[in-house]
Amino acid sequence: MMNNKYTLGMIGLGTMGRNLLLNMADNGFQVTGYDKDPKMLKKLEEDGKAHNLKGFESLEEFIQSLELPRRIMLLVPAGKIVDSVIAELIPLLGKGDMIIDSGNSHFTDTSRRAIELSEKGIHFFGMGISGGEEGARFGPSMMPGGDKAAYNAVKPILEAVSAKVNGDPCVAYIGPGASGHFVKMVHNGIEYSMMQVLAETYDILKNGLGYNNDQIYSLFEKWNNGRLKSFLLEVTRDIFKVKDEKTGNFLLDMIKDQAKSKGTGKWTSQVSMDLQLPIPTINESVSARDLSKFKSLRVALSKALPHQSVAIKDTAEFEAHLEQALYFAMITSYAQGLHLLEQASVEFKYELNLKEISQIWRGGCIIRAELLEDIYQAYKKQPQLPHLYTDESIQHQLKEIIPGTRNIVITAIANGIAIPCYASALAYYDALRTDKSPLNLTQAQRDFFGAHTFERIDEEGIFHADWN
Amino acid sequence: MMNNKYTLGMIGLGTMGRNLLLNMADNGFQVTGYDKDPKMLKKLEEDGKAHNLKGFESLEEFIQSLELPRRIMLLVPAGKIVDSVIAELIPLLGKGDMIIDSGNSHFTDTSRRAIELSEKGIHFFGMGISGGEEGARFGPSMMPGGDKAAYNAVKPILEAVSAKVNGDPCVAYIGPGASGHFVKMVHNGIEYSMMQVLAETYDILKNGLGYNNDQIYSLFEKWNNGRLKSFLLEVTRDIFKVKDEKTGNFLLDMIKDQAKSKGTGKWTSQVSMDLQLPIPTINESVSARDLSKFKSLRVALSKALPHQSVAIKDTAEFEAHLEQALYFAMITSYAQGLHLLEQASVEFKYELNLKEISQIWRGGCIIRAELLEDIYQAYKKQPQLPHLYTDESIQHQLKEIIPGTRNIVITAIANGIAIPCYASALAYYDALRTDKSPLNLTQAQRDFFGAHTFERIDEEGIFHADWN
Repeated sequence: MMNNKYTLGMIGLGTMGRNLLLNMADNGFQVTGYDKDPKMLKKLEEDGKAHNLKGFESLEEFIQSLELPRRIMLLVPAGKIVDSVIAELIPLLGKGDMIIDSGNSHFTDTSRRAIELSEKGIHFFGMGISGGEEGARFGPSMMPGGDKAAYNAVKPILEAVSAKVNGDPCVAYIGPGASGHFVKMVHNGIEYSMMQVLAETYDILKNGLGYNNDQIYSLFEKWNNGRLKSFLLEVTRDIFKVKDEKTGNFLLDMIKDQAKSKGTGKWTSQVSMDLQLPIPTINESVSARDLSKFKSLRVALSKALPHQSVAIKDTAEFEAHLEQALYFAMITSYAQGLHLLEQASVEFKYELNLKEISQIWRGGCIIRAELLEDIYQAYKKQPQLPHLYTDESIQHQLKEIIPGTRNIVITAIANGIAIPCYASALAYYDALRTDKSPLNLTQAQRDFFGAHTFERIDEEGIFHADWN
Repeated sequence: MMNNKYTLGMIGLGTMGRNLLLNMADNGFQVTGYDKDPKMLKKLEEDGKAHNLKGFESLEEFIQSLELPRRIMLLVPAGKIVDSVIAELIPLLGKGDMIIDSGNSHFTDTSRRAIELSEKGIHFFGMGISGGEEGARFGPSMMPGGDKAAYNAVKPILEAVSAKVNGDPCVAYIGPGASGHFVKMVHNGIEYSMMQVLAETYDILKNGLGYNNDQIYSLFEKWNNGRLKSFLLEVTRDIFKVKDEKTGNFLLDMIKDQAKSKGTGKWTSQVSMDLQLPIPTINESVSARDLSKFKSLRVALSKALPHQSVAIKDTAEFEAHLEQALYFAMITSYAQGLHLLEQASVEFKYELNLKEISQIWRGGCIIRAELLEDIYQAYKKQPQLPHLYTDESIQHQLKEIIPGTRNIVITAIANGIAIPCYASALAYYDALRTDKSPLNLTQAQRDFFGAHTFERIDEEGIFHADWN
């Protein structure tokens, strides 16, 4: 601690902020925190006893305790709270101080705040953090974007506390503006899609094949030793062995079949539509969560419109196909997210480096997976890869897994099992490998009743026909 | 014309504005128009010779020519132009005058404008018009929302010019605020979905069954004589007989397979996500248009990842199933749109009357169809219908058409034909008739790595578990 001052101060000592601060202390940094809630300060001191970690109840004293230029990190709920914290901070800060918003702020808020603060001489950047509580504590993946000089002032801390893969830190400067929060948002969109595909896989195993939780655990355990190895599959596998303390049943079976969401998946879908960059499988995962909430409607319709159940024959081949389908859906989830990043980079001048982004996603974050090593290699080989499907090694895998994937999708549909993300991923694949789409008809319709014009295959220009 | 003044003035004399004005003149109303472009004024006078229809080049004179309180309708492109026209108008108008924005404005713009103008004592309402050029000229479907007293001042004109079904006008007061533009937006979302389903049907017929354009024309002609009868199917059918003047080929075959969009479908999807009301099939139709634009990527992937084609056997049964699938997809497109309207009505206090909305959609608009008569009857029987699928008569039809629909979806997928909307509609159906969805797993995952808590099936409250 230079001049008895702290190197970095954290505002917001909830689980994420506290754990990240403990992680910094573990790595030898002199850090402190501030929270309005004395309970949070007490918790920090308890958990950080080994490092003599202390926090402040007074914002003024907290600010005075920081080394100049100040490095202040926010880990508070996204939205209005970020603005009100910044408003409280402004009169206390000096030129050259920096604020790092590490919550899940919407990227448009981050752009606005960066402009407002730069007018006051304060550096601001938005940083996405992934890895949940555990990641924050022992090594998250971090996506900082904004003022590059400011980034360099915290780079040593971030690199030290981040997850590592093959010795490389899972943090890198993402790009200017709100690019850090944008990339984190898309990370979450990919996460939504992968989670929904796992839920559909569970549905097929449970209701199609009649597997019990132990059987599902074993299958996921087996798969997680192969190319599907990933944090999400590992977590999912582990869920299938947790028992409920109250009833002794599996805890999973005691949980309501209605999923909530915090908005980052929705944001990803919404902005993708503004950019006219299709991510249909991510969209379906957002819809699936929303649909799950209509429980009483679902119960009523399940009685009125039952499906004549046809059990799926449990064969080794079907299991192998399901593994292939899951792998295909994972490839496609990443492909859509990365395609969106590429488009956003052009639109918002983010200068994104997809090789580096896939590199830092390999560890620490929720979507880390073996597959990301292949994706990283694809972008390393060809940094301007137009789409993940165009990489030769990915194509080689697609050719192997598509027939089995088709079988899974067809079988699930025949058995009345809802697989919106699987079906959407396959439709996306089929549409993308179609040199002649049927949307010439769409354009003809638009010209027919709305005079919206069309383009021709044999001549440049804009045309309109009298269709009647 | 009272005191030599006009009853209504139209600003914007492009095709839509001009045709609607001609329609009003046909119905005996004394109306006039204004456009900055003298060519548009000339066109109005030419087309409106029979009624001695005249327009103004001077905005001041135009305003002075209108009966008090003034009725001014805008048919100008949505967005900033609407704001600039309103800004020009304000100093020229008096208290009690009214402005009707009949373009495809975003409903949030309409809300804002209504508030701004009501502060100045000017009535404002947003009205959606559907029916294209032809509809505007001879009878559109109209969705006016906002100030009800103001609506009454134009009601006779709107009812006279609107389409009629069984003598009922295809216009009704929709509700307060921006409800008119909201309902029109959702109308367009349904339209996107139906158009994409028709494109997928075309793909199956052309590339699956190998039908030529004449065969497709005949089949659509046959279908359009049955329950599928609709404006969109009629238009689509007719497209299959139009020849290209330049080459003598079918014009459809000379059109690029890339569809454009103007944004209303996208807006529908985006707001549905904000309302957490799933409309996945509409979302897929938005994505399908966006995807079509990646032509060079599609061409490259069609070579690298070809599908081993398996021709579909052309049987009478398959044709019958395809008719059923198309009918199912149409039911589902309406169901999702109407479900969204119901949710929006609660959220935005629009007081929507779905019986009346389905009634006015039966004629004049792009999504008019025989099926809307059944939908209208469903809401007439039960105004608070929670979802279209819960109507008994619709359920009766669903039971008949679902097995055939499944066969179509499965066959298309097996043959590598991209059918994102068909597959999404069936997944939506299957998810909605599932009393136990697999999204308990999603909520378990969220609690596992993000401490997002869960609800239990056996006890009220919010719970968190230590999953490790």
